[in-house]
Amino acid sequence: MIAVSDLLKQAKLAKEAARKLAYLSTDVKNKALSNMAYALKKEMGSILSANERDMKNAKEKGITGALLDRLRLDERRIDEMAQGLLEIAALADPVGEVVSMWVRPNGLEVGKVRVPLGVIGIIYEARPNVTVDAAGLCLKAGNAVLLRGGSEAINSNIAIARVIAKAAEDVGVPSGVISIVEDTSRETVSEMLKLRDYIDVLIPRGGAGLIKAVVENATVPVIETGVGNCHIYVDEYADLDKACKILINAKCQRPGVCNAAETLLVHKSIAEEFLPKVLKELKTNKVEIRGCEKTVSIADWVKEAYENDYETEFLDLIIAVKVVESLDEAVEHIHRYGTKHSECIVTESYTNARKFLKQVDAAAVYVNASTRFTDGNQFGFGAEIGISTQKLHARGPMGLKELTSTKYVIYGDGHIRN
Amino acid sequence: MIAVSDLLKQAKLAKEAARKLAYLSTDVKNKALSNMAYALKKEMGSILSANERDMKNAKEKGITGALLDRLRLDERRIDEMAQGLLEIAALADPVGEVVSMWVRPNGLEVGKVRVPLGVIGIIYEARPNVTVDAAGLCLKAGNAVLLRGGSEAINSNIAIARVIAKAAEDVGVPSGVISIVEDTSRETVSEMLKLRDYIDVLIPRGGAGLIKAVVENATVPVIETGVGNCHIYVDEYADLDKACKILINAKCQRPGVCNAAETLLVHKSIAEEFLPKVLKELKTNKVEIRGCEKTVSIADWVKEAYENDYETEFLDLIIAVKVVESLDEAVEHIHRYGTKHSECIVTESYTNARKFLKQVDAAAVYVNASTRFTDGNQFGFGAEIGISTQKLHARGPMGLKELTSTKYVIYGDGHIRN
Repeated sequence: MIAVSDLLKQAKLAKEAARKLAYLSTDVKNKALSNMAYALKKEMGSILSANERDMKNAKEKGITGALLDRLRLDERRIDEMAQGLLEIAALADPVGEVVSMWVRPNGLEVGKVRVPLGVIGIIYEARPNVTVDAAGLCLKAGNAVLLRGGSEAINSNIAIARVIAKAAEDVGVPSGVISIVEDTSRETVSEMLKLRDYIDVLIPRGGAGLIKAVVENATVPVIETGVGNCHIYVDEYADLDKACKILINAKCQRPGVCNAAETLLVHKSIAEEFLPKVLKELKTNKVEIRGCEKTVSIADWVKEAYENDYETEFLDLIIAVKVVESLDEAVEHIHRYGTKHSECIVTESYTNARKFLKQVDAAAVYVNASTRFTDGNQFGFGAEIGISTQKLHARGPMGLKELTSTKYVIYGDGHIRN
Repeated sequence: MIAVSDLLKQAKLAKEAARKLAYLSTDVKNKALSNMAYALKKEMGSILSANERDMKNAKEKGITGALLDRLRLDERRIDEMAQGLLEIAALADPVGEVVSMWVRPNGLEVGKVRVPLGVIGIIYEARPNVTVDAAGLCLKAGNAVLLRGGSEAINSNIAIARVIAKAAEDVGVPSGVISIVEDTSRETVSEMLKLRDYIDVLIPRGGAGLIKAVVENATVPVIETGVGNCHIYVDEYADLDKACKILINAKCQRPGVCNAAETLLVHKSIAEEFLPKVLKELKTNKVEIRGCEKTVSIADWVKEAYENDYETEFLDLIIAVKVVESLDEAVEHIHRYGTKHSECIVTESYTNARKFLKQVDAAAVYVNASTRFTDGNQFGFGAEIGISTQKLHARGPMGLKELTSTKYVIYGDGHIRN
């Protein structure tokens, strides 16, 4: 176990390493990413045996099902991690990009240049692949990373982090750029949340409880990720076939993720036509339905919804259904219950589409497309470190650019101010 | 005096008002800004008499000199405030700008659109003009604002805020968009720092103590502004005439502001030629000099510097001077003592200029120009709400764009994810 002071030592080392990493060439960073991918495969044996220890401990603790599956590593999953690193190597380096540059009337040239953030702390739960993804993305964007994974995956995470950190250092990345917090105690994570002098930003990745705990206790700036109570609103002018396809996709294609739909809102004037069809289709897809009074009056086999069903991110094959009087009521419902993640209107009305796009305040607002597209890959960013649901710094899927800051560089010829 | 629950009521009202303000047309916002300018002049009498009460209280408390002057309002200063609002009206509206838009291979169109942040809390000290500037900038960027000024200026601030809030509402701005926290007690400001559900970002404007208190206690995200311990490094390849002009400008043109220089670093190989000349010039400008051992050995009339002189943002006609062995030592000194605000190298060396620009981590890094240019107006943004010294969200002078967030709008034709 590592004492609290060791975390501090690690964070200081990361901060120093970040300074050098900030102007390391893209070539060296890409070579490091390739070597990390190579090392993961070469050292697969040690990683898998560390993972076996985690799996054994988890089973002893009574962990089963999806949670146990997320913890499990095998050859294929390690290959995927390695592949992910090679894909990050192939992305453009955001560091050094001149975002804009202009000349002032006095001849002073002012440029805005992308630079790394510094040290990023990632606090995450079970899945060991986050260790690799986060380290790779942070490295490519020129940031040192302090990885604090969950206790269930600690042996796997330590094994992986050691392999990739060594592989990076072997080709010239400063020591300390990738490091893992080995002590998973609450005290250590509390300490981490306060290390303002050494950690530039914290990104929690995991469930609502984890994110809330980090946001409420951190003095280090936090980028909130992930909680998605997403809605599909089927407007009175919707193409009902499109609406049905979009809803089924948003709810069923992968129900356990943040951009899946949780509530269906239906305009009253099409409810009697649309609901019987879509509810049947949901049932066929094994979705449990919780409907408002009107929904139940249209389909009496549907269970009645409680208030808290509209507040819940089910992350499961469950959906809340509500019939609304108007587009305005739909917008109000989303304002009240939504988490500002991804929201969709299905409509053929130009005016209603524009109104929904303007009035709904969320990271991603859709017209006639599944909310499942809110994703760094789907948006074309190549990879993502999470989906921000806050408004400061980054909003929506965060790719490499969102892991950077900027600085102004100013070129003069002896300019002074009058 | 307003009870804590009234602050909460105010914040809730601001949050609701911000929703409507977010899609108010630019025309209405500009009309509001003009009307606010008009009302300031029309109601000048009531504002000046409120200011007289503040001035009287301040004198009774023993406040004198620069502090008292900052508090004082007169016809000219109110005219300047009104003029500032008209200038903000003339700036382009950042809200609704499509930052970028692209088409994915599947035909999905993804656009990134600028939207307001929501509710901005401004916590500031003596100068009542901040009440007008901040309200105007926030309004133009579509944000509601909660203004919490210092107790010394409370009567002036309340008078100003009432006049401009009413003028804005009279032309269609929702009630609650501009509001002032009338109770200046510590308890109320503490409460304000925690109103995460209603305030989207806090911007403290004032001295280092205020900023530190806000950063350490707020759970609402904060944008740090202002503290500037800025350096001018005169390289061995400097044009010494340029160096002298730049240094005198950066130190003397307006010493009480954050982008003024506080420390002069001089390369040893030019110290004997450069220092006598520049030190004499500083003395002529009534600057108190605190030099390192070598500086004193070159000019024995100079007072010796202590370690803490290098840490101090003097905001006054005082300068610390240090002779360094190399560019590397200068960069290290800036890393150790700087506040990542504005840093300058004076050099004719292409290689050294590039090295300094890359390795110095600050909001604004200069080659051969005075640090005094770090300013929204000087950069061409038209106005600024402060200078961010942090890396998240905004860095350097913050104009209207820095008071916004973005959202993704996605146009599909029934797109679903495979």
